[in-house]
Amino acid sequence: MKAEIISTGNEVLTGAVNDTNSSWLSSMLLEAGITMVRITCVGDDVNAIADVLEQSSERVDIVLVTGGLGPTSDDVTAVAAALAAKDEIVMHQDALAGIKNYFKNKGWDMPGINKKQAELPSCAEIIENTTGTAPGFYIEIERALCVFMPGVPFEMKKMFKTGVKPLIEEYFGHKEKILSEKISVFGLPEAEVNLRLKGFTDNFPGIGLGFRAIFPLIEVKFFCAVDSRENCNSNGCMKKANDVIKDARNWIISKLGRYIVSSAGLSMEEEVGRLLLVKKATIAVAESCTGGLIADMLTNVPGSSHYFLFSGVTYSNDAKINILGVNKNTIIGNGAVHENTARQMAEGVKKISKATYGISTSGIAGPGGGNCEKPVGTVCIGIAGPDFSMAKRYSFSFTERYMNKKIFAVTALELLRRELKMA
Amino acid sequence: MKAEIISTGNEVLTGAVNDTNSSWLSSMLLEAGITMVRITCVGDDVNAIADVLEQSSERVDIVLVTGGLGPTSDDVTAVAAALAAKDEIVMHQDALAGIKNYFKNKGWDMPGINKKQAELPSCAEIIENTTGTAPGFYIEIERALCVFMPGVPFEMKKMFKTGVKPLIEEYFGHKEKILSEKISVFGLPEAEVNLRLKGFTDNFPGIGLGFRAIFPLIEVKFFCAVDSRENCNSNGCMKKANDVIKDARNWIISKLGRYIVSSAGLSMEEEVGRLLLVKKATIAVAESCTGGLIADMLTNVPGSSHYFLFSGVTYSNDAKINILGVNKNTIIGNGAVHENTARQMAEGVKKISKATYGISTSGIAGPGGGNCEKPVGTVCIGIAGPDFSMAKRYSFSFTERYMNKKIFAVTALELLRRELKMA
Repeated sequence: MKAEIISTGNEVLTGAVNDTNSSWLSSMLLEAGITMVRITCVGDDVNAIADVLEQSSERVDIVLVTGGLGPTSDDVTAVAAALAAKDEIVMHQDALAGIKNYFKNKGWDMPGINKKQAELPSCAEIIENTTGTAPGFYIEIERALCVFMPGVPFEMKKMFKTGVKPLIEEYFGHKEKILSEKISVFGLPEAEVNLRLKGFTDNFPGIGLGFRAIFPLIEVKFFCAVDSRENCNSNGCMKKANDVIKDARNWIISKLGRYIVSSAGLSMEEEVGRLLLVKKATIAVAESCTGGLIADMLTNVPGSSHYFLFSGVTYSNDAKINILGVNKNTIIGNGAVHENTARQMAEGVKKISKATYGISTSGIAGPGGGNCEKPVGTVCIGIAGPDFSMAKRYSFSFTERYMNKKIFAVTALELLRRELKMA
Repeated sequence: MKAEIISTGNEVLTGAVNDTNSSWLSSMLLEAGITMVRITCVGDDVNAIADVLEQSSERVDIVLVTGGLGPTSDDVTAVAAALAAKDEIVMHQDALAGIKNYFKNKGWDMPGINKKQAELPSCAEIIENTTGTAPGFYIEIERALCVFMPGVPFEMKKMFKTGVKPLIEEYFGHKEKILSEKISVFGLPEAEVNLRLKGFTDNFPGIGLGFRAIFPLIEVKFFCAVDSRENCNSNGCMKKANDVIKDARNWIISKLGRYIVSSAGLSMEEEVGRLLLVKKATIAVAESCTGGLIADMLTNVPGSSHYFLFSGVTYSNDAKINILGVNKNTIIGNGAVHENTARQMAEGVKKISKATYGISTSGIAGPGGGNCEKPVGTVCIGIAGPDFSMAKRYSFSFTERYMNKKIFAVTALELLRRELKMA
């Protein structure tokens, strides 16, 4: 089964916003075992939208269209759909009732302008929108099922999951359940991950494999679609698929070994948080060059207040000495970017916050501040635990300040993760 | 003049990566006064790419293609270009020399596999790639100038600026200089900014206007293309354009007033940094719910070590009391999320770090932790200056933890920005 996506809107076409809808929908279709053929983006132009609709609906079985269902004069997708389907626009009473109901639930009257959103091609079947005013709908053009959804990302995603996915399954008479797993990897470039997993498709035909770089981690995703109709389930399709996915998982783990951060696909900060909870341990951070990024990452995880106690972002030497208790002579003798300073920072922050572990960073994120001995990209990372403390020096070669901060932060968390795994 | 963009690659088509290249190129073309007609994304498929190339080159004057110029078997864009142009593939010695030179500069020999990147349509003219191995090239198909660039974002951007933009100017015999300015706005929704600037196009015909939401700021961009040929310049075109842009700027400022963060388009953290430098002042931060995000934002600005001294990410009450010196009874009596606690946090962090200003946040970012009195989205922000301290309570209604952290952080920086403007 083949599909295309059409995203409409001047704001996407002119680059004012990124078209994140299309990539999200693409990945949903991929997981459902549907082959993507083309993504097209056009502006708020009736003829341009109708043209693309006609072309796409000749090529594929499913066309997903986002955007242009709002109440203003820019919103012309319904008219374009009617044009492509050689249909006329009529008022759909069920769609109108849905819009009125949406406003009623908010305690408001429906503004007159929103009535337009119920004016759809006469052959359209309505798809309910529970999170916004624009109803979705579907029509048939040529060989394709054409589905129209709003452009607001959270409205579109909700509608796809609750209305469109079941529709596709029913329309094409197949009901697939997707088994999908993720493994997150740190410390290998994407090309190397690719190389290590080279034999995957031969070993596991029918299991999809994909990579997503979430700098500096690589997420390895593998999945298969299982027919989940009743008679099939009783025959054990699901059990068989589960076994194959499990084998695939073990195969991937054997190839990537110690570079795996989480075999459940967690991010570095989620995995570190999970391990801290398991060990009933707490963490405090002393950040120089990472400037609060480690704390920000750790506290992005809901529930992090159970294990994250404190981070001291000590940019100045005075703060390192006065707040963390780093020895003044250590900084004078070695500089702020040094293993000894980093170790004392980790020890100091552990002590003042009474945490189980302290980690620290001191380095040069750039663009300025580097020299021959300690170029931009140099970082010293310290870690202090219940009965030890140590520090290591690393060199990275990124030129962007933000990338250096990020790789420094993730490297520090990786050091802690390995410690927690062994503890 | 009209243009289309074609982005190629399975990783984009299947949603593994967002197509940020296309939105960047779109905004570049918009600034150059070129009208965007369509963006199409296809996979690594010779026939699909050739098809789209043929269709696009019939519709518009310029077709920009990204991706598929690498050395592996997936990279088929050059072959597709030859197919669409009814041309043949030949080895281009000048392209080969460029690739060899790229490796030579790195101190390496060229691997054999990279030779393929010099195999291009016979009619292709080479565009130098100074930051990677894949040479760019251009050919004519139908009515269009078709330009092929690598898919790696930084290689593509560099090539566009140094090679493609000048090429377009020369090819179409016009040399335009773009006057472009930005104003950043905080505290108004995008729809309200739109409404306030409604009469812009009538007042300033010929000046483009665009918005970009960089949550929670809105960037208002206005620009015009000026013919910069010599005889025009001597006639004062540039001066005239500069005057109009200046008028447009004043008009926008009059409509957006106090919601303007920076009339030079700086981000909140850049503007706060700029003001701190001007005032020769320093800043320290006490973060609870923002969890290090304020420090991270401030230290993303190069040179921030001149004014940023310290941030204490005090998630636990103990850290607030022991490290910042917040009165224990204040927290027991009012809770951690309270104006009194926030004020004492700001005072405390200012004191221990000897900064000119201290700012603080204590709130509930969610998803858990809210109650009737203090729901998710509540934040108390404190500020302490040379001769005052105060705190305010705000309520936001975002449900995403990350969005709450971000709006809390930007609101705290906004409070400081207003203080610095008045000081």
